[in-house]
Amino acid sequence: MPSPNLRQATVLLAHGSSDANWLKPFEQLTSSIRQSVGATARIELAYMELAEPSLESVTAQLSDEGYGVIEVLPLFFAAGRHLRKDVPMQLDALSKEHMVRMTLKQPVGLEPEVAGAISNVVLRSLQENSEG
Amino acid sequence: MPSPNLRQATVLLAHGSSDANWLKPFEQLTSSIRQSVGATARIELAYMELAEPSLESVTAQLSDEGYGVIEVLPLFFAAGRHLRKDVPMQLDALSKEHMVRMTLKQPVGLEPEVAGAISNVVLRSLQENSEG
Repeated sequence: MPSPNLRQATVLLAHGSSDANWLKPFEQLTSSIRQSVGATARIELAYMELAEPSLESVTAQLSDEGYGVIEVLPLFFAAGRHLRKDVPMQLDALSKEHMVRMTLKQPVGLEPEVAGAISNVVLRSLQENSEG
Repeated sequence: MPSPNLRQATVLLAHGSSDANWLKPFEQLTSSIRQSVGATARIELAYMELAEPSLESVTAQLSDEGYGVIEVLPLFFAAGRHLRKDVPMQLDALSKEHMVRMTLKQPVGLEPEVAGAISNVVLRSLQENSEG
């Protein structure tokens, strides 16, 4: 539980890609979430690799602004080597370097609501085919 | 629209990883979708790279069983180089090699229902923090 004295920010972490087309949906998702929460919460998008802003630059920025707790929410379907090894090591290093507390949530794809939505999309697609 | 004479199968296409932990949620999702649709539709999971079964082996198998139309539904958040270049080229080659019609749907992450579910997970996480 975060100390009430420390300002908290949320970083949505996507894998990243050198392809701008791949990045766009993540930017749109971040905008739409920001609109939903309004000015009550600080939300940033960062990429693990291949695209800017990096997790490192976003962490440095938030720390400079006085945020003391950063919650990292991975926009991943599942936790492989990246989320079980690379990212925790990076969070550990960044948290020491920038004097912030960093926590890593489970990937959004593992949340039942997201898995259920994917199921629905597949089922609807099957239904459309059988009606076609 | 598929010809009524051709049997149709759906392949859920995930990126793939050498890490079995990463694969598990995709296998669970596929099982749960199969349970929902019952025996009325043929659904397979395939990986683009780094894991088996590959899209190639699944396509060969389905073609051997007499499926003439294969719809590929990418379990991706967004369409980058993989889904805009590599996969269409592979589908083109596989479709010629195995005499099947193959279609590529948009990635599930771009479906509003999935994007909405991700938003909800983020918003709920923010709410839990502010209540903590």
